[in-house]
Amino acid sequence: MAILENLKWRYATKKYDPAKKISKQDIDTIVEAARLAPTSSGLQQFRVFVISDQDLKNKIVPIANGQQIVADSSHLLVFAAWDKYTAERIDSIYDLTTDERSLPRGRFSTYTDKLKNLYLTQTAEQNFVHTSRQAYIGFSMAIAAAAELKIDSTPMEGFNTEALDELLGLKEKGLKSVLMLPLGYRDAEGDWLHSMKKVRNPKEEFVVEL
Amino acid sequence: MAILENLKWRYATKKYDPAKKISKQDIDTIVEAARLAPTSSGLQQFRVFVISDQDLKNKIVPIANGQQIVADSSHLLVFAAWDKYTAERIDSIYDLTTDERSLPRGRFSTYTDKLKNLYLTQTAEQNFVHTSRQAYIGFSMAIAAAAELKIDSTPMEGFNTEALDELLGLKEKGLKSVLMLPLGYRDAEGDWLHSMKKVRNPKEEFVVEL
Repeated sequence: MAILENLKWRYATKKYDPAKKISKQDIDTIVEAARLAPTSSGLQQFRVFVISDQDLKNKIVPIANGQQIVADSSHLLVFAAWDKYTAERIDSIYDLTTDERSLPRGRFSTYTDKLKNLYLTQTAEQNFVHTSRQAYIGFSMAIAAAAELKIDSTPMEGFNTEALDELLGLKEKGLKSVLMLPLGYRDAEGDWLHSMKKVRNPKEEFVVEL
Repeated sequence: MAILENLKWRYATKKYDPAKKISKQDIDTIVEAARLAPTSSGLQQFRVFVISDQDLKNKIVPIANGQQIVADSSHLLVFAAWDKYTAERIDSIYDLTTDERSLPRGRFSTYTDKLKNLYLTQTAEQNFVHTSRQAYIGFSMAIAAAAELKIDSTPMEGFNTEALDELLGLKEKGLKSVLMLPLGYRDAEGDWLHSMKKVRNPKEEFVVEL
């Protein structure tokens, strides 16, 4: 099983070799995995920002608690989710869906009405709890794709999301940052975690069969 | 790239062939992908319930808005996250980590103290927003692993989580259900979605390069 071997190979890389850059083709593959990820009702409630500009990565270091891996990574992915649901956002993807499937627009209106009744009666905060969860699915597929390419990644939640939103102008786009994923090639000798055994709860504790 | 091909192959299966059962080995592989998934601080804030008992699957159908796929699936996975953080839960995984790495217990105490200061001062609701997000990572890896095995899956959020928690006795375990993943083999002829084109936002809309 490729995915099990890839998940065993990967680890939350703590030090990158800043001289090694990921090819454009490989970055495209990683982002494509996120784009193909399933999402609730197929709405793709998140977007991916691919940052290779060194000045911009440097500016994000203090926003990420001073973590140098952000600057040393080859590329930094930022996953940002819809700040809230709107009728336009829901209609937009379903119009695309019907167009792509050569169906009449409105073919799924019973379903999209149900989604609107559900989400548009919630607060923006409730909406974001849901949209941000979807970003985790794309994020996970990107991690798995990177590992398949033997590209290292560091899953990161701990950063100042408001400062990053401000820096990237996300508010104007109706987005809020959720996750960051530095990508690159490990500096094995400089990384304290590299030689450490991966530890997981044993299967007996993790799984319950019924 | 295997993962891209696998993600293109999969779709949210709407009808299963109830006669086709997944082998024990394949189920173990899918769950193993979830177990190997990265989680915040390595805490594995969720557990996986593997349900093959037909009576139990039947009982879950009304909890899942009457969706027959739950009963017709070969196996139903339920992803349930910690209801809240506790010092014991945090210490438990770090004690395991130090033991497995032949390090003295407490080696990571500065870090675990930081985690406790962060999470134990939050409400249980705030904790669950975070723990439930981790379940999405394991869920995603399980979807990717199933697709690699050419096993179908149906990502599901829409169910009565409280009723499922009650049925599975999750509250007593300090867990709350987050996601369900019916697994099995598609009944292609009976599935309206099977022949439909997969639709995603085009790359130009989904990705921003900076």
